[in-house]
Amino acid sequence: MELWYTEEHTDNVRFSIKIDKQLYSGKSEFQRIDVFESKEFGKFFTLDGLIMLTEKDEFIYHDMIVHVPMATNPNIKKVLVIGAGDGGTVRELSRYKTIERIDMVEIDKLVVDICKEYLPQTACQLDSEKVNLYFEDGLKFVRTKENEYDLIIVDSTDPFGPGEGLFTKEFYGNCYKALNENGILVNQHESPYYESYAKSMKRAHKRIVEFFPVCKVYQAHIPTYPSGHWLFGFASKKYNPITDLDENAWNSLGIKTKYYNTDLHKGSFALPNYVKELMVNKDE
Amino acid sequence: MELWYTEEHTDNVRFSIKIDKQLYSGKSEFQRIDVFESKEFGKFFTLDGLIMLTEKDEFIYHDMIVHVPMATNPNIKKVLVIGAGDGGTVRELSRYKTIERIDMVEIDKLVVDICKEYLPQTACQLDSEKVNLYFEDGLKFVRTKENEYDLIIVDSTDPFGPGEGLFTKEFYGNCYKALNENGILVNQHESPYYESYAKSMKRAHKRIVEFFPVCKVYQAHIPTYPSGHWLFGFASKKYNPITDLDENAWNSLGIKTKYYNTDLHKGSFALPNYVKELMVNKDE
Repeated sequence: MELWYTEEHTDNVRFSIKIDKQLYSGKSEFQRIDVFESKEFGKFFTLDGLIMLTEKDEFIYHDMIVHVPMATNPNIKKVLVIGAGDGGTVRELSRYKTIERIDMVEIDKLVVDICKEYLPQTACQLDSEKVNLYFEDGLKFVRTKENEYDLIIVDSTDPFGPGEGLFTKEFYGNCYKALNENGILVNQHESPYYESYAKSMKRAHKRIVEFFPVCKVYQAHIPTYPSGHWLFGFASKKYNPITDLDENAWNSLGIKTKYYNTDLHKGSFALPNYVKELMVNKDE
Repeated sequence: MELWYTEEHTDNVRFSIKIDKQLYSGKSEFQRIDVFESKEFGKFFTLDGLIMLTEKDEFIYHDMIVHVPMATNPNIKKVLVIGAGDGGTVRELSRYKTIERIDMVEIDKLVVDICKEYLPQTACQLDSEKVNLYFEDGLKFVRTKENEYDLIIVDSTDPFGPGEGLFTKEFYGNCYKALNENGILVNQHESPYYESYAKSMKRAHKRIVEFFPVCKVYQAHIPTYPSGHWLFGFASKKYNPITDLDENAWNSLGIKTKYYNTDLHKGSFALPNYVKELMVNKDE
């Protein structure tokens, strides 16, 4: 008998992984959560039938969502993480001794509980002293904050279901307010390749541009996400992720990474023409 | 009724495309050839059950295999193309007025015939005056050449089946000999992500390094190839694809591209750490 997990990347495209067994299946107040074991990708977990991370390639996503802002401003001390229930983002942030406090706001406690049980590879730092875990709606949490963080990382699901509010104008405006004058906002920015994802990406980008003077997009190869071509948004009040990158400073930290390096950091902001055109602010 | 095309990226990973209909299926002396029509990717063709190109994303592959060497040395006049039966590489080369002659060697005439019939989008320049088409084994063709080409592009299938000889030491040595003192060799270099592909990539890279003083690898996002993370090899006798790139010279040509630009050119050589490690020449 063969067991296969199949994900619909669009109505016309499917990606399937042979699995050894299903380790968990459950439903929280917000979404369905499943954990599988596979030969190719190790353990992986899905929310509402979409892969969130696999043991094999989670390093790519977490390297790129954390080290790009951290290398741009090595003086980041207070970080707000929204979403990221698997703990991978907090794990990477925890490697910086300069960080004093990480507030993490995950709407779904069950995601954290399940990841702690099945994915210690990513969840390993969630109980660290520097980390304050809030099980709340990130949208509401950030409304109450002002001039408080050096960095906000929005490590959300796609812009439908529980993650929807994290792609709204109101949310980006509140992030701007919650950041201090050095503030950087990084978010997962969907894929440019399939039309449905590209539409969300365009809309999100257009909204962020209204608040932040510096707005860039960078890319990475994430084979288990639709199309494998994934984007991240970098918005900030003053830091430019290319000209303000101090390569020597970051390299002197001695942080070993499997994906990120400072050449790749710069290279990841060089986008294909068709992606750049998607982000031109046309009236529609 | 739904029709799906399914490709095995590894024994444990499958990629499936919903198709409207199959346009062609046949067998040449060398391989099985199929052409399909799909909503998501337009027409696409496969050799021995592996996607070679789709109308939707062939621009990515062809931009990257052609414009990177052409922008590195704008004085390229004589080009040898090996494989590339679909014609996409020749189409992109044909946009350079400076190129005087393109010799194209495709082992399988049926591939060219089928692409001319079903994929005029890529095959459109195969009958151009500058193009000499040879239906021969590229491995044998290149043996007879000496000091003749400015650029050789190896646009082959994977290193098993008919493409196997195009990943051998003998072949790379003959390419070196067939190139003049300005010579550049570019080849499709497989993917670093799945182990079976990464192995071929390592082996090929190790062999090229033995002949060429300049050896680099660059990457692109090609969603319909396994993992979507695809590499190209750049080897040359003297040109460095980063320091010798004259951005203004290329931009002044006015060649419109959907993927390639000169920032991306530079960025594409910045590789993830895990890919760089694969290419370290360890004794094995």
